[in-house]
Amino acid sequence: SRPFTLLGGVNVLESEQFAMDVAGVYCEVCARLGIPLVFKASYDKANRSSIHSFRGPGIEEGLRILARIKSEYGVAVISDVHSPTEAAPAAEICDIIQLPAFLARQTDLVAAMAATGAAINIKKPQFLSPAQMTNVVEKFRECGNDRLMLCERGTMFGYDNLVVDMLGFDVMRKSCGNIPLIFDVTHALQCRDPMGAASGGRRSQVAELARAGLAVGLAGLFLEAHPEPDKALCDGPSALPLHRLEDFLTQARAIDEVVKQLPPLAID
Amino acid sequence: SRPFTLLGGVNVLESEQFAMDVAGVYCEVCARLGIPLVFKASYDKANRSSIHSFRGPGIEEGLRILARIKSEYGVAVISDVHSPTEAAPAAEICDIIQLPAFLARQTDLVAAMAATGAAINIKKPQFLSPAQMTNVVEKFRECGNDRLMLCERGTMFGYDNLVVDMLGFDVMRKSCGNIPLIFDVTHALQCRDPMGAASGGRRSQVAELARAGLAVGLAGLFLEAHPEPDKALCDGPSALPLHRLEDFLTQARAIDEVVKQLPPLAID
Amino acid sequence: SRPFTLLGGVNVLESEQFAMDVAGVYCEVCARLGIPLVFKASYDKANRSSIHSFRGPGIEEGLRILARIKSEYGVAVISDVHSPTEAAPAAEICDIIQLPAFLARQTDLVAAMAATGAAINIKKPQFLSPAQMTNVVEKFRECGNDRLMLCERGTMFGYDNLVVDMLGFDVMRKSCGNIPLIFDVTHALQCRDPMGAASGGRRSQVAELARAGLAVGLAGLFLEAHPEPDKALCDGPSALPLHRLEDFLTQARAIDEVVKQLPPLAID
Amino acid sequence: SRPFTLLGGVNVLESEQFAMDVAGVYCEVCARLGIPLVFKASYDKANRSSIHSFRGPGIEEGLRILARIKSEYGVAVISDVHSPTEAAPAAEICDIIQLPAFLARQTDLVAAMAATGAAINIKKPQFLSPAQMTNVVEKFRECGNDRLMLCERGTMFGYDNLVVDMLGFDVMRKSCGNIPLIFDVTHALQCRDPMGAASGGRRSQVAELARAGLAVGLAGLFLEAHPEPDKALCDGPSALPLHRLEDFLTQARAIDEVVKQLPPLAID
Repeated sequence: SRPFTLLGGVNVLESEQFAMDVAGVYCEVCARLGIPLVFKASYDKANRSSIHSFRGPGIEEGLRILARIKSEYGVAVISDVHSPTEAAPAAEICDIIQLPAFLARQTDLVAAMAATGAAINIKKPQFLSPAQMTNVVEKFRECGNDRLMLCERGTMFGYDNLVVDMLGFDVMRKSCGNIPLIFDVTHALQCRDPMGAASGGRRSQVAELARAGLAVGLAGLFLEAHPEPDKALCDGPSALPLHRLEDFLTQARAIDEVVKQLPPLAID
Repeated sequence: SRPFTLLGGVNVLESEQFAMDVAGVYCEVCARLGIPLVFKASYDKANRSSIHSFRGPGIEEGLRILARIKSEYGVAVISDVHSPTEAAPAAEICDIIQLPAFLARQTDLVAAMAATGAAINIKKPQFLSPAQMTNVVEKFRECGNDRLMLCERGTMFGYDNLVVDMLGFDVMRKSCGNIPLIFDVTHALQCRDPMGAASGGRRSQVAELARAGLAVGLAGLFLEAHPEPDKALCDGPSALPLHRLEDFLTQARAIDEVVKQLPPLAID
Repeated sequence: SRPFTLLGGVNVLESEQFAMDVAGVYCEVCARLGIPLVFKASYDKANRSSIHSFRGPGIEEGLRILARIKSEYGVAVISDVHSPTEAAPAAEICDIIQLPAFLARQTDLVAAMAATGAAINIKKPQFLSPAQMTNVVEKFRECGNDRLMLCERGTMFGYDNLVVDMLGFDVMRKSCGNIPLIFDVTHALQCRDPMGAASGGRRSQVAELARAGLAVGLAGLFLEAHPEPDKALCDGPSALPLHRLEDFLTQARAIDEVVKQLPPLAID
Repeated sequence: SRPFTLLGGVNVLESEQFAMDVAGVYCEVCARLGIPLVFKASYDKANRSSIHSFRGPGIEEGLRILARIKSEYGVAVISDVHSPTEAAPAAEICDIIQLPAFLARQTDLVAAMAATGAAINIKKPQFLSPAQMTNVVEKFRECGNDRLMLCERGTMFGYDNLVVDMLGFDVMRKSCGNIPLIFDVTHALQCRDPMGAASGGRRSQVAELARAGLAVGLAGLFLEAHPEPDKALCDGPSALPLHRLEDFLTQARAIDEVVKQLPPLAID
């Protein structure tokens, strides 16, 4: 059985040097641990709570940076697209393009992404049930693209809070034809101060939540880290401190290995 | 005190004749009851669950139909926009342009809509708390547009279900500087069969839910009706049967009138 | 059509004089407004968060006080019972005995309460769906008691928060054979500071929430008031200040009257 | 580090022979796997949805059966108590007595259970947040009993459904002074058909949910099994088929072992 793939990187391309440095750490650690890596970074944060928040370098500059990372480190890359016109250029550089959770039902975006032929990471919206994801998956398939993976990132639980329903993975697997399942552990840690203009997080719990998800048996783990989470330009409260990456992945791998060695246990 | 405004119409422009006919009924009934009307119809359903679902006539043809309704009936019109490029043409025809719930945090769309100078109906996403709406409102204000209204349409409550938190209206009013509040009663009735590819609804409860919302004290009611809900091309399960429009609005007006005559009751 | 009945009073019998004084105000205001009153007070708060919290005078002394209120003011009374042995003595004094929400599925308590032949107010638990209430109602009926009413007091919505689902009333009405429906507006206002040892509340919103509930069309309203909510021994944060009782009930009555004059509006 | 303890057994004492047989299987399997066992069985199901449902043999007969199991198999036993008077007799036989979730805030029951000096398994109610459990724990400690463990069994998520919030374990651990944490995996699988009179379940997912919980790092696992779940007198839909017990526990132990060998990973 195969080890999990890490879709790991940073929330947003804070700068070219920042991205190169962090990508270097990811590549080194993953090589040491034997974990396949796809480096993740956003070039545009298109739905920040506040208009004053940092959005990133934009698609042109962002894809240039991702292309450099890809070529210098020999690593696959993934980024998220936010409008139909972004799909084709992003797919030229990225090995996987990602459908954002809030946009998961926008048909034109789905169609444009599907048409690239790229592999697609579908983020499950916080507002959809696991069973409903089959509709999103079917849209891609109807558009001729079946290189799909589904990524859990938590479900709305009351106001300003998320919960990860561990039973949802298997519901999605069964209703979506054995699709590869990814767990976005850092976004699942988001929570909010009701009146605040930025999301909060619970990064101190990232390791236990990742272990729980991987214990279900998954194809991949999605993770954002930062050298100094308290200074991150976006989502620092849920980011893993980069210097704990190796210890964190060691835990994740230990769970993944033992789960994937277990014989199947079918219960009627 | 002013009576509520009805943002009332149809889910989608099924055809030109369909829209003209339904608009005629709305105009006649509202005139008889003395209820100010803004006729609502979508030209594109951009986020249907299934790619096979009917989407509408598209923006060009749709705006032409809305312009005809506006001119023939002398009624204001509202429609929803789904990308930055749609904002300006929609605002040329529509008196109010609407920000869809799933797109409420897309900064580029907010900026493009704000720039039109049109009045804006902001749909509250099913995944945001009332207190968080101040961030969306602030984005519009920072972009120079303060002709805003906020529209409740239910909040995710477990999987495949919505609930309307009647306490949320006042939270939004207070945190958003006395903004006009609208209640979209028909979308709030949506629910889902977990494995289904179309939303369900509870239209038999539309009158009681509308009365409850109006009893809080609101600026407007948002409503979709259909001559034959079971044959509607979208959201029939939550649509009011058009022939009950007058009875329904009579109830709504009765509650609205009594609430707006009540003296204020401040409780510390 | 009949006006709503007020199940109104205090959270707990803080002292005999306190209860007499508050009951006097209730009786006077309700007589003036023509609202039928059942005076409510608890003799024991059996499930406080903290063991140090005030629990009340106990059943013997408490029932003596309620009997005095009943005889001096000529008003019906209601109180809640917490164990099978309390049912019979409580039913000797009280016109209605109440099944607490957390205990709504304890079969022995249901059987003992049913056996008294008293009218029963069933509090809907925060953790049960409206459709599930038919099981509780059926238990009473199987035990030979059909003098039942069902009381909504909010449903758990995420952690430490409640929401009132206005659609639930009709679900209960239909699934429970047209049972009289009560709305406990003050308990529905409870919320919690996650780490706190006492429940919080949103009493400033009591009037709008009561109006919303009554606009659905209900048999009764349940209310707790206090002369000085900030000094109340239990649940002050959600209590109506007693000096606003008349203004509050005037609003409630206005909605109730208009709703009950509306002709039925059946929608298929 | 210590392996997890299994609080494992049956939902209800269907008969003496049934209990003896199942306990025999548990003892044999746990001995083989080196898993410490406390055998669980209820003598009374005091809160069934329907009054016609099977409740069990009652306290006297039930404790006699548990005493026999304890003596014949040399295994510790646990059962749940439902009123203050049951606490002392139950504690004479049982090594651990359990506070039911719905009754977790009933002060008299807590006090009576605490007074026995027995070890206490506190079931977390479906309606309380993890942070609120500190109040229940404090009640026991104020009553002089600190032999406590806390048992997660799912939190209400919308109507008729439960979710296990894996982040809640650590919230309880930190707010309750490093208290031992148990995960009741079979009750967490309950769900309901809205109009049904018995709880449903998702037993086919029991292994993946148990693995997820144990991956967090827990003191114990709570489990109910049945030789023929479809014929069980209570909660069959969430019961593990008894003949899969060894395979199930082998998976659970594999996760538990790897988690407890991981070095601590503190993240600020």
